[in-house]
Amino acid sequence: MIDEVTIRIRAEELIRMALAEDVTGEDISTNSVLHGRQEGEAELLCKQEGVIAGLPVFAHTFRLLDESVQICFFAKDGDRVHKGQKLATVRGDMRAILTGERTALNFLQRMSGIATYTAQMVQLLEGSKLRLVDTRKTTPNMRLFEKYAVRMGGGGNHRYNLSDAVLLKDNHIGAAGGVAQAVARAKAYAPFICKIEVEVETLSMAQEAVEAGADIIMLDNMSHDEMKQAVRLIDGRALVEISGNVTRESVSALKDIGADVVSCGALTHSAPILDVSLKNLHPVSAG
Amino acid sequence: MIDEVTIRIRAEELIRMALAEDVTGEDISTNSVLHGRQEGEAELLCKQEGVIAGLPVFAHTFRLLDESVQICFFAKDGDRVHKGQKLATVRGDMRAILTGERTALNFLQRMSGIATYTAQMVQLLEGSKLRLVDTRKTTPNMRLFEKYAVRMGGGGNHRYNLSDAVLLKDNHIGAAGGVAQAVARAKAYAPFICKIEVEVETLSMAQEAVEAGADIIMLDNMSHDEMKQAVRLIDGRALVEISGNVTRESVSALKDIGADVVSCGALTHSAPILDVSLKNLHPVSAG
Amino acid sequence: MIDEVTIRIRAEELIRMALAEDVTGEDISTNSVLHGRQEGEAELLCKQEGVIAGLPVFAHTFRLLDESVQICFFAKDGDRVHKGQKLATVRGDMRAILTGERTALNFLQRMSGIATYTAQMVQLLEGSKLRLVDTRKTTPNMRLFEKYAVRMGGGGNHRYNLSDAVLLKDNHIGAAGGVAQAVARAKAYAPFICKIEVEVETLSMAQEAVEAGADIIMLDNMSHDEMKQAVRLIDGRALVEISGNVTRESVSALKDIGADVVSCGALTHSAPILDVSLKNLHPVSAG
Amino acid sequence: MIDEVTIRIRAEELIRMALAEDVTGEDISTNSVLHGRQEGEAELLCKQEGVIAGLPVFAHTFRLLDESVQICFFAKDGDRVHKGQKLATVRGDMRAILTGERTALNFLQRMSGIATYTAQMVQLLEGSKLRLVDTRKTTPNMRLFEKYAVRMGGGGNHRYNLSDAVLLKDNHIGAAGGVAQAVARAKAYAPFICKIEVEVETLSMAQEAVEAGADIIMLDNMSHDEMKQAVRLIDGRALVEISGNVTRESVSALKDIGADVVSCGALTHSAPILDVSLKNLHPVSAG
Amino acid sequence: MIDEVTIRIRAEELIRMALAEDVTGEDISTNSVLHGRQEGEAELLCKQEGVIAGLPVFAHTFRLLDESVQICFFAKDGDRVHKGQKLATVRGDMRAILTGERTALNFLQRMSGIATYTAQMVQLLEGSKLRLVDTRKTTPNMRLFEKYAVRMGGGGNHRYNLSDAVLLKDNHIGAAGGVAQAVARAKAYAPFICKIEVEVETLSMAQEAVEAGADIIMLDNMSHDEMKQAVRLIDGRALVEISGNVTRESVSALKDIGADVVSCGALTHSAPILDVSLKNLHPVSAG
Amino acid sequence: MIDEVTIRIRAEELIRMALAEDVTGEDISTNSVLHGRQEGEAELLCKQEGVIAGLPVFAHTFRLLDESVQICFFAKDGDRVHKGQKLATVRGDMRAILTGERTALNFLQRMSGIATYTAQMVQLLEGSKLRLVDTRKTTPNMRLFEKYAVRMGGGGNHRYNLSDAVLLKDNHIGAAGGVAQAVARAKAYAPFICKIEVEVETLSMAQEAVEAGADIIMLDNMSHDEMKQAVRLIDGRALVEISGNVTRESVSALKDIGADVVSCGALTHSAPILDVSLKNLHPVSAG
Repeated sequence: MIDEVTIRIRAEELIRMALAEDVTGEDISTNSVLHGRQEGEAELLCKQEGVIAGLPVFAHTFRLLDESVQICFFAKDGDRVHKGQKLATVRGDMRAILTGERTALNFLQRMSGIATYTAQMVQLLEGSKLRLVDTRKTTPNMRLFEKYAVRMGGGGNHRYNLSDAVLLKDNHIGAAGGVAQAVARAKAYAPFICKIEVEVETLSMAQEAVEAGADIIMLDNMSHDEMKQAVRLIDGRALVEISGNVTRESVSALKDIGADVVSCGALTHSAPILDVSLKNLHPVSAG
Repeated sequence: MIDEVTIRIRAEELIRMALAEDVTGEDISTNSVLHGRQEGEAELLCKQEGVIAGLPVFAHTFRLLDESVQICFFAKDGDRVHKGQKLATVRGDMRAILTGERTALNFLQRMSGIATYTAQMVQLLEGSKLRLVDTRKTTPNMRLFEKYAVRMGGGGNHRYNLSDAVLLKDNHIGAAGGVAQAVARAKAYAPFICKIEVEVETLSMAQEAVEAGADIIMLDNMSHDEMKQAVRLIDGRALVEISGNVTRESVSALKDIGADVVSCGALTHSAPILDVSLKNLHPVSAG
Repeated sequence: MIDEVTIRIRAEELIRMALAEDVTGEDISTNSVLHGRQEGEAELLCKQEGVIAGLPVFAHTFRLLDESVQICFFAKDGDRVHKGQKLATVRGDMRAILTGERTALNFLQRMSGIATYTAQMVQLLEGSKLRLVDTRKTTPNMRLFEKYAVRMGGGGNHRYNLSDAVLLKDNHIGAAGGVAQAVARAKAYAPFICKIEVEVETLSMAQEAVEAGADIIMLDNMSHDEMKQAVRLIDGRALVEISGNVTRESVSALKDIGADVVSCGALTHSAPILDVSLKNLHPVSAG
Repeated sequence: MIDEVTIRIRAEELIRMALAEDVTGEDISTNSVLHGRQEGEAELLCKQEGVIAGLPVFAHTFRLLDESVQICFFAKDGDRVHKGQKLATVRGDMRAILTGERTALNFLQRMSGIATYTAQMVQLLEGSKLRLVDTRKTTPNMRLFEKYAVRMGGGGNHRYNLSDAVLLKDNHIGAAGGVAQAVARAKAYAPFICKIEVEVETLSMAQEAVEAGADIIMLDNMSHDEMKQAVRLIDGRALVEISGNVTRESVSALKDIGADVVSCGALTHSAPILDVSLKNLHPVSAG
Repeated sequence: MIDEVTIRIRAEELIRMALAEDVTGEDISTNSVLHGRQEGEAELLCKQEGVIAGLPVFAHTFRLLDESVQICFFAKDGDRVHKGQKLATVRGDMRAILTGERTALNFLQRMSGIATYTAQMVQLLEGSKLRLVDTRKTTPNMRLFEKYAVRMGGGGNHRYNLSDAVLLKDNHIGAAGGVAQAVARAKAYAPFICKIEVEVETLSMAQEAVEAGADIIMLDNMSHDEMKQAVRLIDGRALVEISGNVTRESVSALKDIGADVVSCGALTHSAPILDVSLKNLHPVSAG
Repeated sequence: MIDEVTIRIRAEELIRMALAEDVTGEDISTNSVLHGRQEGEAELLCKQEGVIAGLPVFAHTFRLLDESVQICFFAKDGDRVHKGQKLATVRGDMRAILTGERTALNFLQRMSGIATYTAQMVQLLEGSKLRLVDTRKTTPNMRLFEKYAVRMGGGGNHRYNLSDAVLLKDNHIGAAGGVAQAVARAKAYAPFICKIEVEVETLSMAQEAVEAGADIIMLDNMSHDEMKQAVRLIDGRALVEISGNVTRESVSALKDIGADVVSCGALTHSAPILDVSLKNLHPVSAG
């Protein structure tokens, strides 16, 4: 959640770094024409239909440049937005608005693009109990923002990183000498607070994983029929996750399998941005 | 360029942060099954046709985890790659390979996605002198990697950030009181080593910009005919850049305008990833 | 786990900061008497019976000061050690050994102190299925090291931090309007990969938590009898954790309750150090 | 001193890191039940008799999460506090209070534990001129807080780190070729503003150190009688420090030696925490 | 420009580090005598004639220590100042004023020294079109401040660093195999937004550079006559820069060459400070 | 001391930052002409008579860019060097040499400039016992390097920063209510390991300071005669420091006063650089 506390503890430093990435010394163009503080106001406009996400990040970007900036929102994260809709006004030092604009929009557009893509996928799953979640296939140093955007689009999150749950894949299973051994080692090693998930490729592996006490079974590269069989076999003794190259084209077909969760890397690695822009910046009298 | 020097000065810290993003305390799954160093080897396989970019970043990610890792490449950045092609072998501590895999691939897939998308656009411009370049619409804290990927796809780079060239847009022109004044102020303010670019919306603005001594004129939101007229009017006295929502669908139509450069935000903000993966990890005897 | 990968990703920066904390400009005493590299060797001796933990951290501290330092260990983390036992030899630049000594020992002594204290508690629980785990009551910026030390002493880890599991305490329950509501909200909000734990003070709260689908029930401030009743009531439908001011004096009495886990803040917040020291530093001829 | 200036320059970054250690992405439990700012108030209660230290750090932890938090203290650092005493009220965003609670208390409890332990030792020395001081045996990255806590307990500080005074131990003396040579080298090398202390094991070393012009003589591993003799021999020409495994049991016996200072590592490496806790968090109406 | 935005994005971190360089733990002297906030006021006095630069940095240094500090300026950056002139009053917590004084003045004195030295050189060039600019010979980690100070003294800036323009020196030319080849490679490699400068030592190199399309020609180690010839030869087709050991003694002689720019390393590497000091600190009643 | 240990703990980070200051993305000029590693060698030449300081920093700068760089020194820090003297050869990746050159020289030139200036001042004091020391008037974030350079020039160091000794100036004395009170408070407050220095303007203040037990008396703004009187009055009971605007012109006159130490801000704030440069870079065959 990009709540105020998380922004302070985790997001702020990344936003600051992004601003520094865009300014080595100064914004030469802006400083060429504006030599002192001048109060101005601009509008944040939506240029495409979608789901907005990242408004608090957008706002915090400007706040880091001008503590007194005033941002008035007419939408909130998770809202469906349409072309032409005014999402916010930004009022403050025109230099801060001009210098921060690109960074603020780079966050907002990408996050909204992910939220929009997610919402489209979620809609395709309507009517089933199958819950759409993300993966760790996020842009480096953007995970916080991208996983939040998935939620704003109506999706859920898989584990945040390698430290907060166990997911035993083929290599782990191979190293342990089998599914049962891998689960046993994880139970011995991992904090009791962690769920243990196992990726399986066959029904017998699924069987072995359930019996070893896995909390979640991920069905990987199975045929539609096999997956249905696996769900019957598991029979509620573990959550069932479907994975693989899930796309907007293929996702609907998964609705009748009976699984609990479908994870989709494309949500974060291949969603195009949502087009929003800052327009009509004009001077206003201060105060 | 992601040469060895740039990796040390600029990329390494971002790669380290990305690894830390993926590991709060430890990789619980891997540490559950591997309790000491065990030498292993895996293959980097391409799963989709495209242009590869980011191999040095991929390699450095593992080196930060295991100094002694050995990576043998069978392709280099900028190469066209095809489905099933083996791009590299990675040999080292299996724990390092398992823990670093996702981060290394997140970089490589995104960078290769951008290179691939760029190469497709570049191909559409073949036969014209029009050069495709990127914008500042990059993912926050990924600019170094994304702008490099554009080059590997055959594109060029626009300015890196707000500090290395002047680009006077409508707001700057408005604040200065006109095109001529804005250019004059920039000439007085900016280092003499900086080029000055002006964004214009009409022929008369273009005229004014050239006469004021702008080095580059960006034609914004003009019709095809107006752009042609502008190029004739500018007549080699400044470089001409075309901007706007350039897509794979619309780019070919720009070839006959006679402009020098076309910039395209989609290269970095909306390219899907290229699918590459690490496969067949298996123990090998050390040494 | 303080494996080589975790040291690189997470521990190294903290070790480097600890060294910087001990050296503002230089080690004046050492530099007064040694004006160039001089090869030397010292012994790491145990001065008290206990369990050792932190040897890789000890070693890495010196490596950060002298890449060529050679450390030869005669014990490994988790070993019982006794007074007078030689644990390691450290060979390298005497300036690095003298300057790094205190920081290396400050890590090792504290971590071994925690491992030793934990091992004593674990021994008191022998014969029961009750597993001893730590809490988040760790020293600021030392959690990685302290939670690892608990494991080396034979204990287990509770959640690493506020992000990797849900633990609903009285305030959360109050804010949600009751146990059932709090669990429901957590199920809706938290990643499906997270376990949900609920802290309860009465049998009816325990009942409500189990029925709401909590994975773990923490019994807080209950009498011995109430805890036994709670375990019977829960009846394997959730893990049962006992908490409260558990000490070496009181822990044995918990063995017959039938709970799964007992958490103890004292492991990390009140364990005295284990005394180990670096002795007999003497010059040796290089090579 | 943990004054406002030191908090800004030195403490803030460490507090921020400690918060980040406790939150990888967000506080899932709190965010499950509280979806926006809600004003609340809690009480800081003392649960054990002792000396309180770290209240400004406690306060700053919350301020980093919620700038508008209001903390009203009923005690100040260095005060004796008793079981049940209300030390403060904390009022602000309930999410900030819940998320920051553990980190704030981890600082406060440890610092107060050290202050309490120090005060107990200081009391045992009452009636003598012997001043109790700490050592560099502090928890890594906690020195600032721990040395301050010692002062709040009535103790004094030894050198902060390796850069602010010279302390010549056996290895330095060995490398220099004798006490006189070591002191001479230090006088030549160290800034004139630095005091020079020498650790001695025999009366003749003490004699040599005084004659060489040492400012402070540390008596190490001497018998009670030898220490008395050393004090007579030194005769006010240098300050005399007693060191070694000083404990609550052994410290009183040192009162009649006539030394100036006794240093004690246990103050910072083995003091248990003082139990304080945050209670009765409840919503209040804002403003 | 050290505008408010640049201070936030780039300068603040460096100022904070400079404060930390001056305070390892606390300001012992100040904390010895002031145990709580006490409002005070001091005057910033100029003790030498010159040009002032760095007032916003001076102010921000104190603001980082005491948010409520009030600074009232009677001069602004770029102003000529004289001995005895009152430049500002600083009012706030006396501890913050005392602790921050040296760091604030270290910035201000050095920046003003550079501005003053630059202004002297600029005056020597009066009446010519020759523009004085700086180089990359700045103090490590002070470039932002030093290049700004050059501007405040009336000079201009050369490129900020190795990334914002191409400057082909003898080694680059050698590696490329000649001037023409080097320029051609730079045109192919560098962003189109970058100017290309070539350092030449002979007239024929100058000729080759112009014909290859260099934007700027730097004349290095040429005689006065050769430089004049070079200017004639280049004939406005590129900007002409003069370089070499330019000093206050030698600079006037360059006025008649007809070049556009003269760069001078001494501006930043050898300017003595301008003496300014903080005086008359006295307590005032708060509010 | 810039020994290997100090470089690792303290200098490396500052060198890395200085490199990053000079490279936003990449070295465009070098990367235009060199597209892969090419072994090369260059010579470090002295172009001016002086004292060299900073060679280990120079070397480490290149090592951070190319681990395999080989640097062979023909002089060492503190050596007198003359025009035309070859100080070192640098062999490694030509890209690393070209990219690192300016940063490496910026450190070396400035440090050598300070060492040279210091040596000149020290020579003027020959024949007296008066020792020349620096002040805290150093360039922000360069103190480590500048104070070391002073030593290499034969000078000594005053306190490193506000935390390692007490220096009571007029404002501290004023706040305490007098010299005796200020010294008394410092004795009570400061670690016993710290020396206490008092700045005095009159003989009676000097008297009061000695009697209060100050370790060092700094004579500020006194006439030559008054200083002599003060030395007699103090009579060896404290060290005597002379301060004020000491220059090459005025320093000799201080020799007969009988003081112990003279401090001089100009050593670090106004020394011009020593001219050294990297020449004759040429390709060599690897290995």
